[in-house]
Formats: sequence, C-alpha cells, structure tokens
Amino acid sequence: MCELLAMSANVPTDICFSFSGLMQRGGNTGPHKDGWGITFYEGKGCRSFKDPLPSAESAIAKLVKEYPIKSESVVCHIRQANSGGISLENTHPYTRQIWGRHWTYAHNGQLKDAHQQLTVKYHIPVGETDSELAFCWIMDQIHLKYKGNEPDEIELFTFIASLCDQLHELGVYNVIITNGECLFAYCSNNLHWITRKAPFGKARLIDEEIEVNFKQETTDKDIVTIIATQPLTNNEQWTKMSPKQWQLFKLGCAVASS
Amino acid sequence: MCELLAMSANVPTDICFSFSGLMQRGGNTGPHKDGWGITFYEGKGCRSFKDPLPSAESAIAKLVKEYPIKSESVVCHIRQANSGGISLENTHPYTRQIWGRHWTYAHNGQLKDAHQQLTVKYHIPVGETDSELAFCWIMDQIHLKYKGNEPDEIELFTFIASLCDQLHELGVYNVIITNGECLFAYCSNNLHWITRKAPFGKARLIDEEIEVNFKQETTDKDIVTIIATQPLTNNEQWTKMSPKQWQLFKLGCAVASS
Repeated sequence: MCELLAMSANVPTDICFSFSGLMQRGGNTGPHKDGWGITFYEGKGCRSFKDPLPSAESAIAKLVKEYPIKSESVVCHIRQANSGGISLENTHPYTRQIWGRHWTYAHNGQLKDAHQQLTVKYHIPVGETDSELAFCWIMDQIHLKYKGNEPDEIELFTFIASLCDQLHELGVYNVIITNGECLFAYCSNNLHWITRKAPFGKARLIDEEIEVNFKQETTDKDIVTIIATQPLTNNEQWTKMSPKQWQLFKLGCAVASS
Repeated sequence: MCELLAMSANVPTDICFSFSGLMQRGGNTGPHKDGWGITFYEGKGCRSFKDPLPSAESAIAKLVKEYPIKSESVVCHIRQANSGGISLENTHPYTRQIWGRHWTYAHNGQLKDAHQQLTVKYHIPVGETDSELAFCWIMDQIHLKYKGNEPDEIELFTFIASLCDQLHELGVYNVIITNGECLFAYCSNNLHWITRKAPFGKARLIDEEIEVNFKQETTDKDIVTIIATQPLTNNEQWTKMSPKQWQLFKLGCAVASS
C-alpha cells in the first residue's frame, strides 16, 4: 500500500501543512519508506521532487516542507513497494505529455497480471511498476480514441473514469490524474477529500503536532480541495469516497463526479 | 544567451563542483538570471530540479549544490530569456519519453522564425520557447522515421545530428540531448568539453574560489566527461568544439563524432 495526496486550488497555495503530515508516514508514523515524490504545477509548467529514500529522512523532503511552493495543482505519493524494485524510475508521480500539457499521475493499490492484461504501443513505461504501465495504457487509450483532437474536459474525464473502472477490475486502483487544470480522483477502496473555503478555521494534523489557522493564511475568496488516502487532520470532516466513485476538481471546486 | 552544462560518467558521480561554478553565472558572475534547471539520471530514472528564480539566489540550487546526487548522466541549463517569458514551463531542461526512456534536452541559442519553420504533430510544446519547439520537432522526426523500431545508437544520433544541422541553419543551436545512456552534444558556435580520468589532478573553478583534488574523490577506473558552454576551470585543457561539430558520449567516453 502507498499513500496519495493531491490538491486543487483557485489561487496558488502551498501544501506545506498537508505535506508535513504525509511525510511522517514515510518511515515514521507509517510504513511507506520506499520513496516518495511530489509534482507542483505553476501555470502550465510543472516540477517534481522525487527521492527513492524514505520521506521521513529525505533532505529533499525537508526542503519541500520548508520552502512554500505555491501551486494550483499538486500530486504527491509515498511508496510502499509491491510491484517493481525501489528505484528512481519506479517512484511516483509519473508524467507524460499530450496536447501541449504535462499529465501527472500517482496510484495506490496493486493490479493483478497487469503486464499480461495491458498492452501499450505509443506510451512505453520506463520503470517496471504496474502503476506506470496502467498510466501508459490510459494515455494510449486516450490517443487511440481522440488522436490530435482534444475533447471537452467532462467528456475526457468521463472516458478516463471508464478506463479506471476496467483497471479496478484487475485489483485495487485508487488514483490521481491531473493535466494541471483539472484534477481527477478515482476511488477503488480508499480515498478521502475535503474542500476548505471561507469561513476558514483551524486544522490539526494527525501525524505531527502542528496546528494551522487557515484564517490567517487565506482570503475569503480562496477555495482549496485536499485529497488523501486517509484524512490528515483530526478536527475536520473529510468525505470518504465509495468504491468506483470518481470526482473531478477544477480551481478547488468539485465540478463533476460519477 | 544561456549556459549549458552536462556530464557523462562511467560510475555514478556527483556534479557539485561544476554546478557550483555554473550557478554563480546565474545572476552573480554572469547575467543568466531567468531561471535554471538540472536533470539527473540514476539508472533509467531521472529527476529534475527547476526554478524560474535566478540560480545564485535559489534555495533549490543551494540544496543541489550541497546534496551530492550521484548520476551517470546530467543535463543543466541556466537561462537568459530571449524567446518566451520567465516561467516554469519555459525553463530547461525539457523531457519527453520515447521507447521506454526519458529523453532530456537543453538548448543555448536562438532560432529565427522557429514557429513558422517547424511543424509538429505528435510532440506538442507546453511552453512558448523556440528551444522546446525544436526539441518537439526532433522527437517528431524520430517518430516519423523509426516509429516503434529503435535503431542502434550510432545511426540514431547521426540522424539527430542531421536534424541539428537543419536547426543550425535557423540561427544558433548549441544543444545537449540525452536518453540517460548516451549523451549527445552539438555545437553551433560555443561548446567545450573535457574528459577527466586517471591520473587525476586538481581543478580550480573560474567563478568561485573552490579547488578540488579529484584524486581524493575518484578511483583509477573512473572516467568523467564534462561539457559546458564555457570552460569552468582555469587550470585544465578544455576542447573547444567547432561549428556544426557533434560528439556522442557514453559512460564518460567519446564514442562517435562528426
């Protein structure tokens, strides 16, 4: 099992608070010690920080925790390896490009016989994980269906959800996919989300003794959604997603769902 | 103008020494203050650190300088913007995937009418630079010529060199391209390289008061090639490349050239 964390926001927002909590689960309060990665979008550009080392000990994780990168879309993953060795090429998130956008993806779960079941031709995995193979398969299916003609986002992500349904049949497939503008979450068995907006209050992390008063950090117009495998705070109401449920977020708001 | 730095080595080697010198040129001893980026390969995996901030002031550059990431192939770029605004999506190096490998690219120079001259269909740029467009055009030409059939590396990079000749006709095209295994350098007007191997000696940076004794850092079997726009040390003999000359490096050694 791995843990996922993602954010969609209507203003560039840092994820230091949530990231601090999650990183503790990477070898400290949790067993996810086989690497971690985080991708930040700033406009159409994105940058990833990755490390095959446990996040609780990583110098790079310390930088990301302390250096507030403001972003509208973030995808983060800490890994407990099950398919593929502990190495940089097997470290999530994975990124590919279609239609002049970076697409970023992270997966929690395991797919049975993925390498027998999923054939790819255009997007070839670099590493050995079933996760990256499933991402490449999704990218191939999008290419085969739409070629150079990008559909509107609701049609596109409804199609992606139908692909996730097929992958869910192979095992456990909790996943986050974003093109920087839209952020898509699919739940196989374990995914929670929360939208924070005015009036903002205090939030207290489960994994570390940190409390933040979002009222001091935000304006009344800010809308920020956080998605995580397990709730990261113990004094807020997180929404638990149901099996095979999906949610599409844009600028912090839920804009479509199954 | 921008500055390029790259490394090819036969053992995982850190680039802290050369990186320290180059980063000074990003807003301190040089005018290249419009962002910087570096990509490290570790096996088939790679990770990039990027910042649209001047490298001489960047917290992320400080981390990279102090945290010795050991790699066999590195590509680094500091930017003085001429085509495309100062933003993350316009920050080199750029990465795409073909044949199950990450390909990384950085360019120094400027191409005239690139957006009129270069048509792309499969690999679409995310940002606005002529550099990324030229990279996408190269990836498209490779796809159109070879499709799913990867040729041997000498044939492939000879073909890439012929594409670089065409781009050189549009302006200035000093470029580094790597798939992690092979590292290719093409000189339009300004590129230097040096291979360090036993017996190792001392090297002294031009841009910062740092001297290193490679004898203490290496074994007799190590071979490390550094490529840079301008020599980074003032007590070693760098090879200046000629216009339209290309060099292919693998495991630190020059394996083919024009």
